[in-house]
Amino acid sequence: MKEIKVKAPATVANLVCGFDILGMALNEPFDEMTLKLTDIPGLIIQHTDEFNLPEEPEKNVSGAALLALMEEYEKPLGFHLTIHKNIKPGSGLGSSAASSAGAVVAANRLLGNIFSKEDLVRFAMNGEKIAGGVKHADNVSPCIYGGVTLIRSIFPLDIIPLNAPSLFITIVHPQIEVRTSDSRQILRKEVQLKNAIKQWGNIGGLITGFMKNDFDLIGRSMEDVIIEPVRSILIPGFDEVKSKCKEAGSIGGGISGSGPSVFMLSKDESTAKKLEKIMKEIYERIGVNYKTYVTSINTEGVKIIQEKEV
Amino acid sequence: MKEIKVKAPATVANLVCGFDILGMALNEPFDEMTLKLTDIPGLIIQHTDEFNLPEEPEKNVSGAALLALMEEYEKPLGFHLTIHKNIKPGSGLGSSAASSAGAVVAANRLLGNIFSKEDLVRFAMNGEKIAGGVKHADNVSPCIYGGVTLIRSIFPLDIIPLNAPSLFITIVHPQIEVRTSDSRQILRKEVQLKNAIKQWGNIGGLITGFMKNDFDLIGRSMEDVIIEPVRSILIPGFDEVKSKCKEAGSIGGGISGSGPSVFMLSKDESTAKKLEKIMKEIYERIGVNYKTYVTSINTEGVKIIQEKEV
Repeated sequence: MKEIKVKAPATVANLVCGFDILGMALNEPFDEMTLKLTDIPGLIIQHTDEFNLPEEPEKNVSGAALLALMEEYEKPLGFHLTIHKNIKPGSGLGSSAASSAGAVVAANRLLGNIFSKEDLVRFAMNGEKIAGGVKHADNVSPCIYGGVTLIRSIFPLDIIPLNAPSLFITIVHPQIEVRTSDSRQILRKEVQLKNAIKQWGNIGGLITGFMKNDFDLIGRSMEDVIIEPVRSILIPGFDEVKSKCKEAGSIGGGISGSGPSVFMLSKDESTAKKLEKIMKEIYERIGVNYKTYVTSINTEGVKIIQEKEV
Repeated sequence: MKEIKVKAPATVANLVCGFDILGMALNEPFDEMTLKLTDIPGLIIQHTDEFNLPEEPEKNVSGAALLALMEEYEKPLGFHLTIHKNIKPGSGLGSSAASSAGAVVAANRLLGNIFSKEDLVRFAMNGEKIAGGVKHADNVSPCIYGGVTLIRSIFPLDIIPLNAPSLFITIVHPQIEVRTSDSRQILRKEVQLKNAIKQWGNIGGLITGFMKNDFDLIGRSMEDVIIEPVRSILIPGFDEVKSKCKEAGSIGGGISGSGPSVFMLSKDESTAKKLEKIMKEIYERIGVNYKTYVTSINTEGVKIIQEKEV
């Protein structure tokens, strides 16, 4: 039987102004998963990490994604999946997306790449529904496609890969829990037209910045007048991290996904490391546990790292 | 004394989903203006067209724009402006923007190009305020820069020129009056977040389509769930024009600015001419007077066509 091992990357959804439509894959952190095609129809899932996630396929994020794929496959299939997560659930770094995307990319490879990337996003969105109650694609798309992706529309699904600039990303994950479903619920259902106009100006600027590799335009477009003012209240130290990192040379940044992680972009690695030091100082002082990453944009998405006959 | 003659192009604002942030310059129709630098400080304006527009500088659109420029110039200036408008006021084709932009571009050339394009947009926005009550830049920017422009922000002004694809544009101007101020007032002040998300997905798709010359992406992104459903009620024949033109091969289109003109895009001139025929048939049948144009994107903006000593 064939066995495959993959790396599934963390992702930053929203990219500040692009709520539900933009996402970016990171080189770190990432999950590791091993998927084996077996003779016994059905799905067995095993976690080797510390996160105490449910292993019943219907309740497991990877499981829900794989079951969607298996349903669309003509014949009965048997899979054995072993997951080692490094991306902490609830971090705002696309932990559930990595689980969903990694599983379906691995399965597709074992089946001879019969499904398109768009199909895989569609399957993986079932995992997102288990995790956050909503089928959204702004983490699973960059996780599968790599780079920066635009979700023009979910129904029908329309994913547009953008240019991925050579930026460095510094992330701090304050170890507090913000549930995606909670952070959705605190949002107002209506927005003022004048704020919506500001937001779409910034989205336009951000996308043009990516396409033109114009880092300053990316920076000044990373402004969110609708979601961030509400969600940032849930994140201790947010305003200080953002303002001090900008003073220290960051081009911009904000909440990663629904938080609590915060990401800041830099043009070079030395600035990115300087930002990490600033973030550490802030959370040491506040007295909140944290984890930091200095990384860059992952342009490949889920990556096959081993493939063998067993 | 020096005298200069310019052509100021019509523009399509909004481009369906980009309300207040996107605009595109056209090769036709256009206004013609002659500006003379004189020894007598002050501003004299004369219209040679049929539109009965006020000629007092403070009430005239070109006048308001020129007065803003003159105020920022260190010394007293004397100008004599003659305007021949072809773009009918209230058409939704940026008639006031052409008047404002043409005047300040001409003045800047006479003064030795001392102001930047962004300065000129800032001056020209004063003309827009006279015409529609609001300082908006989505017509004056493409009129001055040419091509397709994004207004990321008005305060502070941030104009980003986009790539202008080689598309053909068919326009029908049903001869009914829709005042910009009226068509603003019928808009709701709040929008549903879920509709705002759809809108920013489409804006992202449209801008990416322009940057990648992806005509199909441009077409499917030209969808407006917020403004068009409200404004199109004011335009007789709108739904029929849009659906029949799409059936005939148009990639997409919608209301030009605040209407009543409707624009439809095509990949080639023969399709664009086919659309013109369809539009004519519809308005003949409805019994509304109309004017049509088949044109392309103007990449230069306001153009100097004559310069002489008098």
